[in-house]
Amino acid sequence: MGKPSKKKLCKLCKLKGLRKESVIYMKEHRLALCEEHFKEWFEKRVKETIKEFRMFKPNEKILVAVSGGKDSQTLWYVLNRLGYDADAFFIHLGIGDYSDESMEKVIELGKLLGKKPYIVKLEEDIGAGIPVLQNFVRGTACSVCGRIKRYQFNKIANDLGYNVVATGHNLDDESSSLLANLINWNLKYLARKYPVLPAEKGFPKKVKPLVKMTEEQIKLYAQLNNIPFTERSCPLGDTASLHFYKDVMNLIENHALGTKYRFYFEYLKKVYPIFSSLKEELIEGELQKCKICGQPSPSEICMVCRLKEKVKQQKEGS
Amino acid sequence: MGKPSKKKLCKLCKLKGLRKESVIYMKEHRLALCEEHFKEWFEKRVKETIKEFRMFKPNEKILVAVSGGKDSQTLWYVLNRLGYDADAFFIHLGIGDYSDESMEKVIELGKLLGKKPYIVKLEEDIGAGIPVLQNFVRGTACSVCGRIKRYQFNKIANDLGYNVVATGHNLDDESSSLLANLINWNLKYLARKYPVLPAEKGFPKKVKPLVKMTEEQIKLYAQLNNIPFTERSCPLGDTASLHFYKDVMNLIENHALGTKYRFYFEYLKKVYPIFSSLKEELIEGELQKCKICGQPSPSEICMVCRLKEKVKQQKEGS
Repeated sequence: MGKPSKKKLCKLCKLKGLRKESVIYMKEHRLALCEEHFKEWFEKRVKETIKEFRMFKPNEKILVAVSGGKDSQTLWYVLNRLGYDADAFFIHLGIGDYSDESMEKVIELGKLLGKKPYIVKLEEDIGAGIPVLQNFVRGTACSVCGRIKRYQFNKIANDLGYNVVATGHNLDDESSSLLANLINWNLKYLARKYPVLPAEKGFPKKVKPLVKMTEEQIKLYAQLNNIPFTERSCPLGDTASLHFYKDVMNLIENHALGTKYRFYFEYLKKVYPIFSSLKEELIEGELQKCKICGQPSPSEICMVCRLKEKVKQQKEGS
Repeated sequence: MGKPSKKKLCKLCKLKGLRKESVIYMKEHRLALCEEHFKEWFEKRVKETIKEFRMFKPNEKILVAVSGGKDSQTLWYVLNRLGYDADAFFIHLGIGDYSDESMEKVIELGKLLGKKPYIVKLEEDIGAGIPVLQNFVRGTACSVCGRIKRYQFNKIANDLGYNVVATGHNLDDESSSLLANLINWNLKYLARKYPVLPAEKGFPKKVKPLVKMTEEQIKLYAQLNNIPFTERSCPLGDTASLHFYKDVMNLIENHALGTKYRFYFEYLKKVYPIFSSLKEELIEGELQKCKICGQPSPSEICMVCRLKEKVKQQKEGS
């Protein structure tokens, strides 16, 4: 992608004999488009992705995991725009202003779409937010937060009867995490690196409809459609590490245009089938039902229920 | 690796109660060593690699493919130093001063080792050097040159009765080409990416004894031992492209020390067995014996014999 050159004209307008200037030139597609045609192109591409990977059918109820950021907000918006029945679920993580502002953006978009998002506040549900909870368990704030979010999404999808959970992962996310997982040979993750994971073992189906779109394309689509989103990144997150492999992927992309897309989609086609067939050997341990909440868990009591207990004990002790 | 700090002492000298300053500090191993102990460490590590991958036995005759550069010159030197029976083979590519200087360095090292290298000059053997030959075939100068070199090494090893051909590929070469092959999903190459390839289909066994050593370590070892080598790189080579993935690997290494080594050796352990078991499906076409020279070839007449014919025709025509 890149700033549109003054001389570039929208390709689709030109076909109609018009000379409308492009707002966007996508180097990797060698495609210049005006505002309207870019929006059309974006929506068509998302729809194709949904069909190609058989993510869901037109009448299925979809739960979008929204964070207030550009990707998930765009996903919620575009699914509704394409006529799908998509609701949103937001988790207020209890991370000060960051969580408050994110929640506002989600509610704002809900008003635009005429839909009320489901909201869970960790401070109410577990008794504390991530800044406190991260002290109760091993691992970084990001890993604890990720596990809690996955738990909550699975639970609410099951409780409310949604068979499909959609997340806003984009091509930059997926290609850079593929690269990181290859560099570290995390076969367990590689065996699950696919835009659709079927419902299994008490988990709903998971889909990533924005997997062909780049961060830049998504941001532009959001801006052109006045989709509200927050640009803040989580103050607890290890931004340097998160962005490192994205920077590496961009370096490789600049070296040979189109590599990001080919790298990821060739993986899906040629190599994912090999790694996923090894899945059973790679995934350690079986899952059972948590004795307290009934959600799938590798141990008798799941992490979230253990956290609730710890928070309760601490409050009683103080 | 990095410049030794003034305060760093050689670890092995310290164990003997000595306070000798290090000449080298290897960050990725957290190891500081003086000149003598670095040389010992280097040689021990090469010997371990040879044993670990069962490259060859102490009494086997080895043919080292030398180019005059630091890696292959060091390999020839260190194999002799470790007591192996290693001879060298050099191909004069006919690339002006570059080829002349490279050949001089090979002859010079031969004198030091008391061994005479085998030398083939393309201008004599095929009738022309790479600058002319590259015009007769498709592909870059590098790809043509690579194919001619492989042919010549296989042929001379077969003709002279060497069962093992050794090349100077180092950890930087191997990890960066692994990365490039993953990014482009060249499964055919990934299925053969191993420090030992057994003798098969008329090809001798191929081994890479320097695969655990970095470029910097090899260069330092060469300098400390006064091994003659040329620092010039081939004027026909696409240096930018060759170095790109090395730069990317170094970026990743600086982000997390030791990644280069783990990435490559975990591949060998965990993933190479998976890809190499697919080998038969990935390798297109069977090899036959060239009707003129008898070397293995995908077509009736091998590329080198076809080149000889073309050069002859052109000379007769002019």
